[in-house]
Amino acid sequence: MDDLIAKLKAALGPAGVLEGEEAAAKAQGGWSKLGVPRAVLRPASTEEVSKVLKLCHAAGEGVVPWGGKTGLVEGGEADGHLALSLERMNKIEEIDVAGGTATVQAGCVLQTVCEAVEAKGALFPLDLGARGSATIGGNISTNAGGNRVIRYGMARDLVLGLEAVLADGTVMTSMNHLIKNNAGYDLKQLFIGSEGTLGVVTRAVLRLRPKPMSQDTAFVAVEEFGQLSKFLRHMERALGGTLSAFEVMWEDFYKLVTTEPAKGKAPLAYGHPYYVLVESMGGDQEADSARFEAALMAALEAGEVSDAIIAKNQAERDQMWSLRDDVAQVARNWPIFTFDVSLKIADMESYIAEVREGLKAKWPAHTLMVFGHLGDGNLHVIPGTISDHSPESRKAVEAVVYGALRKRGGSVSAEHGIGLEKRPYLGWSRSPEEVALMRVLKQALDPKNILNPGKVLEPASPRVKAAE
Amino acid sequence: MDDLIAKLKAALGPAGVLEGEEAAAKAQGGWSKLGVPRAVLRPASTEEVSKVLKLCHAAGEGVVPWGGKTGLVEGGEADGHLALSLERMNKIEEIDVAGGTATVQAGCVLQTVCEAVEAKGALFPLDLGARGSATIGGNISTNAGGNRVIRYGMARDLVLGLEAVLADGTVMTSMNHLIKNNAGYDLKQLFIGSEGTLGVVTRAVLRLRPKPMSQDTAFVAVEEFGQLSKFLRHMERALGGTLSAFEVMWEDFYKLVTTEPAKGKAPLAYGHPYYVLVESMGGDQEADSARFEAALMAALEAGEVSDAIIAKNQAERDQMWSLRDDVAQVARNWPIFTFDVSLKIADMESYIAEVREGLKAKWPAHTLMVFGHLGDGNLHVIPGTISDHSPESRKAVEAVVYGALRKRGGSVSAEHGIGLEKRPYLGWSRSPEEVALMRVLKQALDPKNILNPGKVLEPASPRVKAAE
Repeated sequence: MDDLIAKLKAALGPAGVLEGEEAAAKAQGGWSKLGVPRAVLRPASTEEVSKVLKLCHAAGEGVVPWGGKTGLVEGGEADGHLALSLERMNKIEEIDVAGGTATVQAGCVLQTVCEAVEAKGALFPLDLGARGSATIGGNISTNAGGNRVIRYGMARDLVLGLEAVLADGTVMTSMNHLIKNNAGYDLKQLFIGSEGTLGVVTRAVLRLRPKPMSQDTAFVAVEEFGQLSKFLRHMERALGGTLSAFEVMWEDFYKLVTTEPAKGKAPLAYGHPYYVLVESMGGDQEADSARFEAALMAALEAGEVSDAIIAKNQAERDQMWSLRDDVAQVARNWPIFTFDVSLKIADMESYIAEVREGLKAKWPAHTLMVFGHLGDGNLHVIPGTISDHSPESRKAVEAVVYGALRKRGGSVSAEHGIGLEKRPYLGWSRSPEEVALMRVLKQALDPKNILNPGKVLEPASPRVKAAE
Repeated sequence: MDDLIAKLKAALGPAGVLEGEEAAAKAQGGWSKLGVPRAVLRPASTEEVSKVLKLCHAAGEGVVPWGGKTGLVEGGEADGHLALSLERMNKIEEIDVAGGTATVQAGCVLQTVCEAVEAKGALFPLDLGARGSATIGGNISTNAGGNRVIRYGMARDLVLGLEAVLADGTVMTSMNHLIKNNAGYDLKQLFIGSEGTLGVVTRAVLRLRPKPMSQDTAFVAVEEFGQLSKFLRHMERALGGTLSAFEVMWEDFYKLVTTEPAKGKAPLAYGHPYYVLVESMGGDQEADSARFEAALMAALEAGEVSDAIIAKNQAERDQMWSLRDDVAQVARNWPIFTFDVSLKIADMESYIAEVREGLKAKWPAHTLMVFGHLGDGNLHVIPGTISDHSPESRKAVEAVVYGALRKRGGSVSAEHGIGLEKRPYLGWSRSPEEVALMRVLKQALDPKNILNPGKVLEPASPRVKAAE
């Protein structure tokens, strides 16, 4: 390793390799376990990333790619390994509003890109809580989702082209700018959502959308789960393609984020089982507001919704969103465990009931916070007031949360990825044939297993054992 | 081969293997060269597809998957080979409107699926000229595009899950129903758009959308190319997400489809360089029509558009679309050669000018029909009245059409795929590193090269030589 580090220093210069306390400091502040890396490599260009991988490939040494370190599944865990940070590759290379593209380096922070695009009069629609520190490279590597998937899709749908450095240092530049391009295999798909295990994303061409000219936001109360999906389908139809958010909060979560010490105020009375933040983005404020109001009125009359309030201005809109975003409140129920799952909407009610029963049996005093992007089939499920935060407790909670999910054909990861944390449960959502094919890809693209080794798929000698 | 055919007959039964004249008859009516297959295999289930591939894998014999045989790039060419037709696998297994999915076998005809979904009150938005015979399996394998990509995306964006049989007969079932699923690699992407070279798609879960409640269609005239993209961006913004078609016709094409023997009537006077069919699909007919009209008026006032007519009823709408769809008229300029390219909108004007110059130099009497999905950067370019239809003429025309494209970083295939026909030009749109990575995938998934051998990528001993 020392010999390799000397070579890396020669290749990247002094600013390019951090060790000791400097490396440890870079591992602070991550949202999930990062460990203490042996060194943090900070290449300043694609060529330097290529040099790093060539050297590591020759030495058979693994590298753990780092973006904004906001991942939630230990996908950046680099204890004793080399971390490969893209933080110095943060140039916005071009914003082409007429062409509808932004070309950026992977280390660009999401919010910085969104703001630069907006300043030019367009929209890059990816939006998620970690926007202020998550990077485009991380968004792509994890196929990030967020608040507007229902309208604009996930990160996968927002990338036209990308550049990735392969395990052996080959630079695979596939910076497509075209919406339609069927000239051979769509290689970018390999690197989107594979969590840095098949290549290191260094640059990307992002697809921009027209900046919406209108925004309408409401907060509504719903009495029965069955009405939630009726209300969703009604709004999709009535708003004709402009529905941009459909965020559901179970009552417990709603209460949590509207009671002290939370700063949020309750826009609607308590006592309803479900609350929905619904939003539309369109082309004409006056006409769209009228349509939005009419659609809500129709839902009230049809009994899909029992109460509703429309944001009259940006401040009220911000207030509504601040409730949805104040996920930090869940820590009040410490010890907590957080989950990100997806399943058919039709299965959600019985799923949550079964999880609640399962938790109750072991932890009578448990809490259960549920909220999520219902329109995408994605729920965040956060059991709390569990006896302790030990790995054993986690495993017991996982048995309840994932056990009920497995029966229903749900996914153990809707938008967070697998990383290390969910690896034991990959086989609960994917068949042996699927996992075998993933291994074929990993073997073909990274035969020495140096790219984020051990993440997503178990290595030959597993550090984390698969769940039964 | 005879021994293999005997085994295939035992596995599939008498209806499952056609030979001789029966096989030759099945190869009639294709839209591009199919050749005369040694036999046509007609499995009736995924298990039978698996048996076929197991036997062919063991024998090292190639198979050429067939859907509706409407491909345009010789992707189904099977001369002397085994064709694998999915025509008996045409069951619609489930349409779940509340869940927003349709589960179908690969041999289902696109139009049949669309109609069945519509009858249940939802929309499967894929729409293209070959809808009456193209199959879902073919649509997926070629990542089909068509008329509504600007609103709903290509086939890739409309597939949630699929089942594919791998080269060795392994059934890889990945019938995901969820919009968000980041549990490991997104394996379906391997089989979408890879033209049957990495696996045979047998079933799919399609994503449905709400049935639009409104439709507004107009035909407009535009005086300058630069105004076209301004008009496009204006309509995208003003219609707030409901723009569903933006089909441009150059004047020559417009004249061709509105003069006898064509049956189409000209909705606007001749004498404008560009005509656009623009359409919106929304949620409220009255409000959407008002918005559509207002957006067109604004475009007229801004000078983006010089004349416009709005369809007052379905008959007028059908008339407008019939012009766009009457591509068969181009045969009046025989000998013709057809191309499907994509490039940045900003490059299109100079591109067409250069193609025109290049053709003129060699064929002073040439015609040039241009039309396409401008919003997607996709043009169909059809030179006609070329001296003869020989391979040499084709090559000379390709040199002009692809030569001008290559300089501009365009794609030799926007939506039709590569097949055999475009294989020599793959390297004109893709870098050596990209093609090398495609080969890595092909080698990993089909090491014996039995899946649609020779399509997309050159085999070791090429039948078609790459262009220089």
